[in-house]
Amino acid sequence: METSVILDTIWVVLAGMLVFFMNLGFATLESGMCRSKNTVNILSKNFIVFAVSSLGFFLLGWGLMFGDGNGFIGLKGLLFASGADNSPATGEAYQGVYSAISWAGIPFWVKFFFQLVFCGTAATIVSGAVAERIKYLTFILFSLILTAVIYPITGHWIWGGGWLSELGFLDFAGGTAVHAVGGWAALSGIMILGPRVGKYTKSGKVNAIPGHSVALATIGALILWFGWFGFNPGSTMAADPEAIGHILVVTNMAGIMGILTATATAWLKLGKPDMGMSINGLLAGLVAITPACAFVSVGSSIVIGAVGGILVVYATLLLDKLHLDDPVGATAVHLVNGVFGTLSVGLFAQEGIIGNEVNGLFFGGGFRQLGVQALGVVTVGAFIFATTALTWLVLKKTVGLRVPLKEELAGLDLGEHGNEAYPEFLQRRSGYTSLLEDISADDGTPKLSA
Amino acid sequence: METSVILDTIWVVLAGMLVFFMNLGFATLESGMCRSKNTVNILSKNFIVFAVSSLGFFLLGWGLMFGDGNGFIGLKGLLFASGADNSPATGEAYQGVYSAISWAGIPFWVKFFFQLVFCGTAATIVSGAVAERIKYLTFILFSLILTAVIYPITGHWIWGGGWLSELGFLDFAGGTAVHAVGGWAALSGIMILGPRVGKYTKSGKVNAIPGHSVALATIGALILWFGWFGFNPGSTMAADPEAIGHILVVTNMAGIMGILTATATAWLKLGKPDMGMSINGLLAGLVAITPACAFVSVGSSIVIGAVGGILVVYATLLLDKLHLDDPVGATAVHLVNGVFGTLSVGLFAQEGIIGNEVNGLFFGGGFRQLGVQALGVVTVGAFIFATTALTWLVLKKTVGLRVPLKEELAGLDLGEHGNEAYPEFLQRRSGYTSLLEDISADDGTPKLSA
Amino acid sequence: METSVILDTIWVVLAGMLVFFMNLGFATLESGMCRSKNTVNILSKNFIVFAVSSLGFFLLGWGLMFGDGNGFIGLKGLLFASGADNSPATGEAYQGVYSAISWAGIPFWVKFFFQLVFCGTAATIVSGAVAERIKYLTFILFSLILTAVIYPITGHWIWGGGWLSELGFLDFAGGTAVHAVGGWAALSGIMILGPRVGKYTKSGKVNAIPGHSVALATIGALILWFGWFGFNPGSTMAADPEAIGHILVVTNMAGIMGILTATATAWLKLGKPDMGMSINGLLAGLVAITPACAFVSVGSSIVIGAVGGILVVYATLLLDKLHLDDPVGATAVHLVNGVFGTLSVGLFAQEGIIGNEVNGLFFGGGFRQLGVQALGVVTVGAFIFATTALTWLVLKKTVGLRVPLKEELAGLDLGEHGNEAYPEFLQRRSGYTSLLEDISADDGTPKLSA
Repeated sequence: METSVILDTIWVVLAGMLVFFMNLGFATLESGMCRSKNTVNILSKNFIVFAVSSLGFFLLGWGLMFGDGNGFIGLKGLLFASGADNSPATGEAYQGVYSAISWAGIPFWVKFFFQLVFCGTAATIVSGAVAERIKYLTFILFSLILTAVIYPITGHWIWGGGWLSELGFLDFAGGTAVHAVGGWAALSGIMILGPRVGKYTKSGKVNAIPGHSVALATIGALILWFGWFGFNPGSTMAADPEAIGHILVVTNMAGIMGILTATATAWLKLGKPDMGMSINGLLAGLVAITPACAFVSVGSSIVIGAVGGILVVYATLLLDKLHLDDPVGATAVHLVNGVFGTLSVGLFAQEGIIGNEVNGLFFGGGFRQLGVQALGVVTVGAFIFATTALTWLVLKKTVGLRVPLKEELAGLDLGEHGNEAYPEFLQRRSGYTSLLEDISADDGTPKLSA
Repeated sequence: METSVILDTIWVVLAGMLVFFMNLGFATLESGMCRSKNTVNILSKNFIVFAVSSLGFFLLGWGLMFGDGNGFIGLKGLLFASGADNSPATGEAYQGVYSAISWAGIPFWVKFFFQLVFCGTAATIVSGAVAERIKYLTFILFSLILTAVIYPITGHWIWGGGWLSELGFLDFAGGTAVHAVGGWAALSGIMILGPRVGKYTKSGKVNAIPGHSVALATIGALILWFGWFGFNPGSTMAADPEAIGHILVVTNMAGIMGILTATATAWLKLGKPDMGMSINGLLAGLVAITPACAFVSVGSSIVIGAVGGILVVYATLLLDKLHLDDPVGATAVHLVNGVFGTLSVGLFAQEGIIGNEVNGLFFGGGFRQLGVQALGVVTVGAFIFATTALTWLVLKKTVGLRVPLKEELAGLDLGEHGNEAYPEFLQRRSGYTSLLEDISADDGTPKLSA
Repeated sequence: METSVILDTIWVVLAGMLVFFMNLGFATLESGMCRSKNTVNILSKNFIVFAVSSLGFFLLGWGLMFGDGNGFIGLKGLLFASGADNSPATGEAYQGVYSAISWAGIPFWVKFFFQLVFCGTAATIVSGAVAERIKYLTFILFSLILTAVIYPITGHWIWGGGWLSELGFLDFAGGTAVHAVGGWAALSGIMILGPRVGKYTKSGKVNAIPGHSVALATIGALILWFGWFGFNPGSTMAADPEAIGHILVVTNMAGIMGILTATATAWLKLGKPDMGMSINGLLAGLVAITPACAFVSVGSSIVIGAVGGILVVYATLLLDKLHLDDPVGATAVHLVNGVFGTLSVGLFAQEGIIGNEVNGLFFGGGFRQLGVQALGVVTVGAFIFATTALTWLVLKKTVGLRVPLKEELAGLDLGEHGNEAYPEFLQRRSGYTSLLEDISADDGTPKLSA
């Protein structure tokens, strides 16, 4: 075996494991940001979602995304990732049906694993947004469809040799392909699901529903930060020292600027440095730099991260104004900053950074790249929003989308799983009584009897 | 230094660190699945067990396992891992007393570390099964004996050039050598220790004793999953790209199928998708594929994992019927699936997968390999069960095995450590009062006065 | 790109990520060892400290530490890590202003990242010692000054080609440069801040203030252990198989001996094997071996770790006698054992271990190296203590050091962040009422009105 194949494999495998580890980050972040009565359910969703993603991406997703086909979908080697392939051969020597990813000189299953963990990330982003009210089975079915069919299609456009990649759309580590896809799926979900009971009253009041454990949430944030060092630098899919070092530092600088500006914005705007905002500031910075990390300078990454951290605070407030209830802020983080980051490639890209050949608007490249980036943002957004909305609606008509009100009030842990997360700890069910009061006060009649 | 040595070292060192990290997985899984009154004790056991394992494996274990000797034990370089050795030399160039592992072209201490973390895993498997009633000191002494003497002996049979390896017994990453060994030691322990007070009533009722934190347990499960990507792919002990990629995907597919079938089985059989069963389904799938991961196809791994996930649910119910009280299900996970996985090599192995030369029963190889695997299962099982049972009995006669009933009821944290895990949180001691009632009801007199 | 550059980059990047991950270890360790009313604040400090460190080290710290200059500070390429540099070129081929680290054949940003995570560690060590009473903003400002100015100066002396390195001072992975620096900064901080209210009564009584979650603390300890496998073996900054293997095992043996002797000492001295002591025993052993890990044998590492584990128990008791209140024992761990470990190089170093050319006192080298080590301990200690004390005092006069008494009693979470860590869980505020009583009893008048 050639040394370069071994080097690339070690790097990609370990980076992929770091991305896999983000499952724990999402599980703890999301459960910490929700109430204890729904903890088992959230953890279960975050746990099984990678099982479902693995199955869906193996059964069909890989083939749709990377199989040779047309500009819109892969058509060869569709099922069971079982098409012809002589990886790690590359270039002219490659003989197989997954040409779009044949530039990576690593064994087939290493490619598969690395792409699988990205697919799983998109699915797990959704879980937080729809938390505390969605049926467990429905979420499982949605995740299967998302990872087997929907995610791979736009993935094909961007990374599978499809029409967007032909146009020169740049998305290095998945700001659109992963984060915005997850974010659009989350948005359509929370629009169709509706807010958690008691979150918004008829009189227009927004009730804060604090999560049950800042410790869990912070554990999640730090694990995600750690995992992102696989997500972005690993997307080289090759052990390229200069690229890895650059992307690593750029990623970190954007993340830390997100923390600093989100914390400062919350401090100035809300009076105190709210920890949840600091956390989502980090994630906003990391998401924003994801599509751009191989194309922009360290200085630009500082700007991008700083903007991301401010954006996420205002986006969170805006979503609440629109009565779009996202318990963990997944939409503000992954959708808003996935879009912003994708556009920022068209603004901040610089020729010569890690072999990049494009200049963004701010570096003399004019509007061309920005236009392509915007086209990608809009078309992927439209496709994902439409297809996921359709999926949610079909699931609503068939298995049902939302748990009964009684179950939502009592908590999904008991209703969906028959478990309690912390059976020995005495708790005040935060908001339980007051929510009931809100319902009564606003509606005249308690909804419980509905 | 040759490039291949550097590559192999990087890979094995990092894989070994991932396996080491499983200590945190076991610590959180086991403490989450037990009651808060025993949390400090369980964490302490899982914390100190790797210290004790490191000492035991250094003092004697390594030499017994890998020292040149006869078919049953190593005899050279026994103490302090200090025998002659010129690693990373391999093959003809190797000059030393640890010939059985001289095929790995990595420095001596890298070999030692990688084997140490496997030894530590076997010991930590035991800790969960005997939790909530064993004396701290007794567990420490048992772990020392297990890792210094018992584990290395069967390890010598399998991986140290001993009689089972001579017969062609295949156990790639330790389904028998690690998991079943830990599982048999756990089984003898819980048989001799007896169940936790109140778990089984004289009238035959099985009381569920829920763990105190599903969050901790889920953190543990995801960390173990992550660590397994070191455990199985790392057992190549060489940076072999094809092997690493194959084993990685095979390991993941078995694990996710374990989640899916265990969740489905629990859903169908118990009415709800119990989270504990989902977690143990994952672990069952991962254990089951461990011995076979380098010898079977991705398709076979799906079957093996699926069977493992079903097995663990039924094994858990069976153990309860037999009044064998294993608070975390370690026996159902590691023993039952360690045995099943070891046998599955004899069923599913295919010639040509990663250099394997054996076909299992289902692929035209007849019963030969299955017979050898069964022989290994039985002899290792008999040896480990007998020697660990003897060890438990000697410890029972000397330092004592079990904490006093009063301490068990009040919790081992106070009795063994003088600590409380969560001193500020108000708790209902789940089962405390009802356990006393059970005791009274069944026995006529409260046992507390005993 | 040369293969050696790729190999070294993979190793150093992954080791650096492990060190980064120690941020989560410190966050969970420190929050677990403090009270729940201060959990958000502690997590916030541990979260933002790496953001601040990244900024400070980027803005100025890197240049001060590694820029060419005189024996005391770097003077070239000071700002934005933007001096000339043609890494990965080494030796004669290197052309740039960061000569002191030009021996490492890796890209510039990889060097920067690896050094950044070490700088961040020093800052995060402080956070635990000053916990439960320091103002959030003050800690942020202190961390910025520490990482931008103070840490880099002594870092320059030791690793940046400064006067201590010229004298032959040996500190392989930062026993002085990182741990003692963090420890001295912590010591000056707790001396100027004063103890938490209620910790020491006027009558001289020492009140134990137990942490709110042994689970969090243990998670932290195991993550730190894991991260140390990057910290010490990664400090090779090159993929040197023999060195990595040796340092890995030496690090682990010292850590486990620290666990065993601290646990035994606590058991003998305090009557029970206190879990907090077991944890700090691990950390003590790991800190103690950090400066020496590339210079001493496995046998010596066992002695060093064993001494560290005993030292930490007695140091903890001594600090309490001196009424120096360090809620997590950071001073006893990082300062005392950073000093001891640095001196132990002068005692236990052996020629020929990983290219080392010095023998310590116990191996026939006389007092020379021990003298140099002692000189480094004293001068770095004096400089860091003086400059950090000055910084604390300036901050005290300007933004203020300590939260108001009312806020300290009610918890910093509400006062500093407007968050609660666990809003749903019913808690007894451990010590709250009794602390008030202590205050009243000792002072005649309740301090709350002060």
